[in-house]
Amino acid sequence: MKKFVDLNSDLGESFGTYKIGLDEEVLKYVSSANIACGWHAGDPVVMRKTVEGALKNGVAIGAHPGFPDIMGFGRRNMTVSPDEMKQYTIYQLGSLYGFVKATGGKMQHVKPHGAMYNMAGKDARLARAIIEGIWEVDSNLIVLGLAGSELVNAAVEKGLKAANEVFADRAYNSDGSLVPRSLPGSMITDKKIAISRVLRMVTEGKVTAINGEDIDINVDSICVHGDNLEAVEFVRLIKEELFKAKVEIKPLNQFIK
Amino acid sequence: MKKFVDLNSDLGESFGTYKIGLDEEVLKYVSSANIACGWHAGDPVVMRKTVEGALKNGVAIGAHPGFPDIMGFGRRNMTVSPDEMKQYTIYQLGSLYGFVKATGGKMQHVKPHGAMYNMAGKDARLARAIIEGIWEVDSNLIVLGLAGSELVNAAVEKGLKAANEVFADRAYNSDGSLVPRSLPGSMITDKKIAISRVLRMVTEGKVTAINGEDIDINVDSICVHGDNLEAVEFVRLIKEELFKAKVEIKPLNQFIK
Amino acid sequence: MKKFVDLNSDLGESFGTYKIGLDEEVLKYVSSANIACGWHAGDPVVMRKTVEGALKNGVAIGAHPGFPDIMGFGRRNMTVSPDEMKQYTIYQLGSLYGFVKATGGKMQHVKPHGAMYNMAGKDARLARAIIEGIWEVDSNLIVLGLAGSELVNAAVEKGLKAANEVFADRAYNSDGSLVPRSLPGSMITDKKIAISRVLRMVTEGKVTAINGEDIDINVDSICVHGDNLEAVEFVRLIKEELFKAKVEIKPLNQFIK
Amino acid sequence: MKKFVDLNSDLGESFGTYKIGLDEEVLKYVSSANIACGWHAGDPVVMRKTVEGALKNGVAIGAHPGFPDIMGFGRRNMTVSPDEMKQYTIYQLGSLYGFVKATGGKMQHVKPHGAMYNMAGKDARLARAIIEGIWEVDSNLIVLGLAGSELVNAAVEKGLKAANEVFADRAYNSDGSLVPRSLPGSMITDKKIAISRVLRMVTEGKVTAINGEDIDINVDSICVHGDNLEAVEFVRLIKEELFKAKVEIKPLNQFIK
Repeated sequence: MKKFVDLNSDLGESFGTYKIGLDEEVLKYVSSANIACGWHAGDPVVMRKTVEGALKNGVAIGAHPGFPDIMGFGRRNMTVSPDEMKQYTIYQLGSLYGFVKATGGKMQHVKPHGAMYNMAGKDARLARAIIEGIWEVDSNLIVLGLAGSELVNAAVEKGLKAANEVFADRAYNSDGSLVPRSLPGSMITDKKIAISRVLRMVTEGKVTAINGEDIDINVDSICVHGDNLEAVEFVRLIKEELFKAKVEIKPLNQFIK
Repeated sequence: MKKFVDLNSDLGESFGTYKIGLDEEVLKYVSSANIACGWHAGDPVVMRKTVEGALKNGVAIGAHPGFPDIMGFGRRNMTVSPDEMKQYTIYQLGSLYGFVKATGGKMQHVKPHGAMYNMAGKDARLARAIIEGIWEVDSNLIVLGLAGSELVNAAVEKGLKAANEVFADRAYNSDGSLVPRSLPGSMITDKKIAISRVLRMVTEGKVTAINGEDIDINVDSICVHGDNLEAVEFVRLIKEELFKAKVEIKPLNQFIK
Repeated sequence: MKKFVDLNSDLGESFGTYKIGLDEEVLKYVSSANIACGWHAGDPVVMRKTVEGALKNGVAIGAHPGFPDIMGFGRRNMTVSPDEMKQYTIYQLGSLYGFVKATGGKMQHVKPHGAMYNMAGKDARLARAIIEGIWEVDSNLIVLGLAGSELVNAAVEKGLKAANEVFADRAYNSDGSLVPRSLPGSMITDKKIAISRVLRMVTEGKVTAINGEDIDINVDSICVHGDNLEAVEFVRLIKEELFKAKVEIKPLNQFIK
Repeated sequence: MKKFVDLNSDLGESFGTYKIGLDEEVLKYVSSANIACGWHAGDPVVMRKTVEGALKNGVAIGAHPGFPDIMGFGRRNMTVSPDEMKQYTIYQLGSLYGFVKATGGKMQHVKPHGAMYNMAGKDARLARAIIEGIWEVDSNLIVLGLAGSELVNAAVEKGLKAANEVFADRAYNSDGSLVPRSLPGSMITDKKIAISRVLRMVTEGKVTAINGEDIDINVDSICVHGDNLEAVEFVRLIKEELFKAKVEIKPLNQFIK
């Protein structure tokens, strides 16, 4: 039985005058922060503040690169080439690295955002392009991707450390992929059910797919959200329930080797 | 008498489909490359290619951060705050650092671009903000700024290595500042005169200001351009004349301590 | 004694996933909407929705062009040329015109945003550039600018209809200009005082400047905000007090000739 | 036998300091200009200049809307929603309309650019979204699309005037679609062959597909390029050969009803 897991959240998504996310609250609960790098969200002032917030709260820092589409929040697929994907990854990793270095911090991981995450989860060529970019910048970084995805496969293939992410609020297909948000039943809206699913994924490595079938799932990290007070309260609750189940929350770098 | 000088040029200014500058040609002549970081010019694919080109030609690499204004090529003053200036510097330094690390290179220097360069040349608060950003990322970097400017002053004050830049094709005021491009006589269009001025600046540390007065000028690096074949030919010529005058071209890191 | 005044508000400032402003609430109270055109805020989907909201609420529509600086929300001065200022105005006017035409609406006015508003308020050349752009697109549009500013002067000079705007929450210098936000006392934070100032400006054409002096002020429109519930409540209150004072709220096109 | 055809070219693609295309040359030969609207290329200063150039040369003006992806020149598919597609079309149409109105011109047509053109050529939902946007702004505009594409179908279905475009330098599949650039044989590089194909398409309404089969093709307009001197020379040549074949070049609005 698993005794620990990472809690990660997408942070630093505010942009100029535009505010998104209760980052200060979320930073109290999570162990790893995926910090936007100014392409789909975030800006240098926000990145600085978010890196400092993570350091202050003892939260491990990760880069959260996305597509150059702030109008679409990086959620729209773009047919970039593998070379573009690779250089976009390096650029954004580097930009966050600037702030990590400036504040005396350390970068733990990389998790692509939105459409970049989804495309790299299914397309091995794009996955490898991202992995090459990460590898070239720092081969000690951990890659955080959808459990069982092409991105995780490519990381393992290259020799990069990889961590498997699950979602508390999403339904799974029987092949381990996420049920697309556009389909009915894709979101687990009942909090009690969501939490019991998370606990089972962490402690048993199993989850019930949307077709009723029990499937194996590998969990290193749980993705949580901080968009509003309700979301933050849910994060607090998950943490409490994990604590009761004697599952420790710790950042990826303490157990991914 | 000075026996060496650095030749620097702004490179990597192409953007997507848009091409600017004969970078491959210019890289044959200069010793230091100021590489655009995607804010006023450049993009990740261009940055990668430019960093690789510099490495191949043995040209030292520098970051060339600018304002977030690609429509204005970073040449338009923007009233950013010192904190914005600082974080914008860190972001762009970091982004180039990504490519430098990915290619096994080393970053030598930082030279702000266009309006950022001009504003930081005159405004001590903005100059200090940039210098703090550079210092926090890497206190071994050399700051390349207008000879005698606030940027160079702020670097020295902070303990960063600083290099003084002169322009072959620009007229100087008697206080050592550049005559604004909008004024008559601001550009030295006669190549022979430009070259003899450069030689005198390098070997005697003197230049004739626009009012006819001879002034002292400190030269560590000469800024040259590669916009077109004529500009590149001029770079070749300067290099030839410096060679004849027994002035060696070498990158800043070989003599700025 | 004045019997009517326009109430205007900056609307449609949301951008992609980023939400700003309680537009639906504010539209219930104001008579004129300044709609962002996607350069400093807003996007096409937001513009469409905002134009439709204005039409539904019988609120007159105006374009709110700004600088190409969404990261700075158009609040940072940029040294654009008069020609750039003119073409930027035409572009943004046109873009909003697209939605106005698509929805069967009518455009009433133009009010530049933020730094564009401030720069054009003081610099006659830039003011004239904006006015020329507006004139060329539609010489029936009303220009809404700071009471007594260069923008209003340039409109009058060109023969465009002009409307004078005042701010309920800002202090005035004795020359009629706004006290910069950076100075103490620039904001009128006491709501009762703000409202009594507004009433006096509208009914007597007078306001007490920051130095205690009473000055004349020309009021066609009052600028109000809808950033949060408190701001919206203040708009409701102003409207109520104007009603009590028998001042009718009506859009500019009903009284500016 | 056809006695006339339109020659169209994508123009106004320069952006700030970045120059693309020999627009002044091309404007001497074509009858219709597709003018970029600042999203995938172009900026307000360039749009103004291009509209004026078209007017001066008696070339009909069309809007050339594209995706918000200047880094990718609008050539990368983006998974936008039909509503986004529609509002993006209205925004860009409107922006060009601003310049057309400012210069006393008239807008003749709309031709989507790059990935927007390709996606709308195959996806009926996206095609209809664009067509609705155009219809709402001005139901007299002509839609210029790939001969036989969904975009042309959607225009006809809605009651908008539609014009069929062919490419001199591209190979066709036997179903009338273009052979993708990524496949061998997709480009017709031999100028003589390209011109004889164009002449046959115009005068006989036939073209030989890549599999050798003769197919019917409907030609209202021929797309030509002005990227370099060689391209412009090819335009001149096509025009000359059409003249010899007694085919008149005239803008779409003179024959599309």
